Amino acid sequence: MSKKVKIGSCYIGGGEGVKVQSMTTFKPSDIDNTVNQIKLLENAGCDIVRFSILNEDDAKAIKIIKNHVNIPLVADIHFNYKLAISAIENGIDKIRINPGNIGSEDNVKAVADAVKAHNVAVRVGSNTGSIEKEFLSKYGKNEVSLVESALKNVAVLEKHGVNDIVISVKASDVKLMIKSYEYLASKTDYPLHLGVTEAGTEHDGIIKNSIGIGSLLSKGIGDTLRVSLSADPVKEIEAGVSILKALDMYDGFVRVVACPTCGRCEWDCMAFANKVNDLCKTAKTNLKVAVMGCVVNGPGEAMDADLGIAGGKDCAVIFKNGVISKKIKIEDIESEFIKELKNCLK
Amino acid sequence: MSKKVKIGSCYIGGGEGVKVQSMTTFKPSDIDNTVNQIKLLENAGCDIVRFSILNEDDAKAIKIIKNHVNIPLVADIHFNYKLAISAIENGIDKIRINPGNIGSEDNVKAVADAVKAHNVAVRVGSNTGSIEKEFLSKYGKNEVSLVESALKNVAVLEKHGVNDIVISVKASDVKLMIKSYEYLASKTDYPLHLGVTEAGTEHDGIIKNSIGIGSLLSKGIGDTLRVSLSADPVKEIEAGVSILKALDMYDGFVRVVACPTCGRCEWDCMAFANKVNDLCKTAKTNLKVAVMGCVVNGPGEAMDADLGIAGGKDCAVIFKNGVISKKIKIEDIESEFIKELKNCLK
Repeated sequence: MSKKVKIGSCYIGGGEGVKVQSMTTFKPSDIDNTVNQIKLLENAGCDIVRFSILNEDDAKAIKIIKNHVNIPLVADIHFNYKLAISAIENGIDKIRINPGNIGSEDNVKAVADAVKAHNVAVRVGSNTGSIEKEFLSKYGKNEVSLVESALKNVAVLEKHGVNDIVISVKASDVKLMIKSYEYLASKTDYPLHLGVTEAGTEHDGIIKNSIGIGSLLSKGIGDTLRVSLSADPVKEIEAGVSILKALDMYDGFVRVVACPTCGRCEWDCMAFANKVNDLCKTAKTNLKVAVMGCVVNGPGEAMDADLGIAGGKDCAVIFKNGVISKKIKIEDIESEFIKELKNCLK
Repeated sequence: MSKKVKIGSCYIGGGEGVKVQSMTTFKPSDIDNTVNQIKLLENAGCDIVRFSILNEDDAKAIKIIKNHVNIPLVADIHFNYKLAISAIENGIDKIRINPGNIGSEDNVKAVADAVKAHNVAVRVGSNTGSIEKEFLSKYGKNEVSLVESALKNVAVLEKHGVNDIVISVKASDVKLMIKSYEYLASKTDYPLHLGVTEAGTEHDGIIKNSIGIGSLLSKGIGDTLRVSLSADPVKEIEAGVSILKALDMYDGFVRVVACPTCGRCEWDCMAFANKVNDLCKTAKTNLKVAVMGCVVNGPGEAMDADLGIAGGKDCAVIFKNGVISKKIKIEDIESEFIKELKNCLK
């Protein structure tokens, strides 16, 4: 099991639930927009949010933003060690920084001292665009150079007594990303932050992230995740939450099982499945609901759910807890089933 | 490596490319709608299409549909062995049937004889709704009972001399689906048809299928796939193709790497990435294009692409084949980069 690292009010690693992250798209000094966006992200299920700190105004904004939101904040800082210290002094919960790119040993020590004094966590990481030159020339661009780059930065922090570390090794190539995290997991006990970087636009980006992050989580690798999309960050959170739900790593939601329908289906099962899905979307109840189109796979799946329906030509059967509850006319599906569903959701 | 099975004009297994499948939503006897839908699916990248055969009219329609489309056809048949024989005699390329549910040994023999006489392939499979009772009571609902159910049906076919078999073990639970195919792959050399069954509505269904199918493909398991969604089947094909692209298992397409943008980004990188994506969507060229927002990860990723751009505050840099090609003003990004892109796509 990975080491447990405290990030403000929550934990990453050590068997805690996998935390879902995103990143805001406004400059933190644009406080109103940043706070509003973070609230939307929180509402969608975001556990931890990150933003880029580009200057002192951004760093000072942290203190104000923190008063208006509920989730831990992470500052993304590159090159400038003074901004890192300023972010820490202004109350940031975690910084994402590579000690290798903030200059001298003294700079690193100054940041490490601030990190320790304020009990702030650090994420270090490499991605295919930032592999250290020595490893790039030694190994080429692969899982070894990605992991060695990250671990070199970890070693620098450890040398200065910093131990609350989270590591990432992101690639935009999904196969490389999977191999890199597998290799990293074999070499460290620090919690891992999963992500496919620069995954692209929404549709294909969700697919790339689902394959990469999902493969790893299903093997027990990963403690926090960020789905990276060229789209509204709320979409990143929705996708991240759905990945966790798909792998039974999310507590309190309704799992809707619905058949894709085919020529066998004699009623508008697809529209009804979408309606059921919408009704269940925000429910926090642990429940499995099946909406099935026909008699081939229908009864089996419907019986396996807490509440299920299998439609036929003229009639449909409602299943509750694995047994037939009621046979109804096909035209009564909506009224009867929705009534049952609402009872279950209460 | 899996055995190679011929399905009409294409092959499944034996190191051939992974084939993308979907299923029509009309009855085959509704010939016009079925043909139109198959053409839309072909156009989206569908390699093989399946439909349910419910009666003799559907079976007879196969002959006519076959004349109007270019991809192999699969008949989904349950319970009725006569319909299976009729589908075969009407020119179907593959049938999806479980010999365990078509009745007597004589019925099975009659179907097997037709299959062999017409060189038709067979998919057999189990899913969580149709596990054989003997295995359900012996093992419960798990990967063993799913796989044993499928293999029992395979053995029945083999006994009658049928060897062109494709196997599936679908579950709507992604973790169970992954485990089941892993177990199945360890026990058979027949090609495997991957799918998460009853995956639900579009957003979450794509995520479940991407995790399940993508995990297995990344481990070298799977020869054909169907993304199952409660949505337009064209969406199933688009998602299936994107899964293959994400894993470099698809030939001839433009890989667009785009950054998710953050507070560091000083120009509208996201809108531009979407524009680039749209331009590249139908291109059949093998090309990697990177659209990056800033100087942190930008140059690294852009240099790694065949054509890349990294934007900054006032200017941007175009990279070609790993080296800087041109420094341009930020307002000229669109005209300059699109010109270069169109040249590459020619």
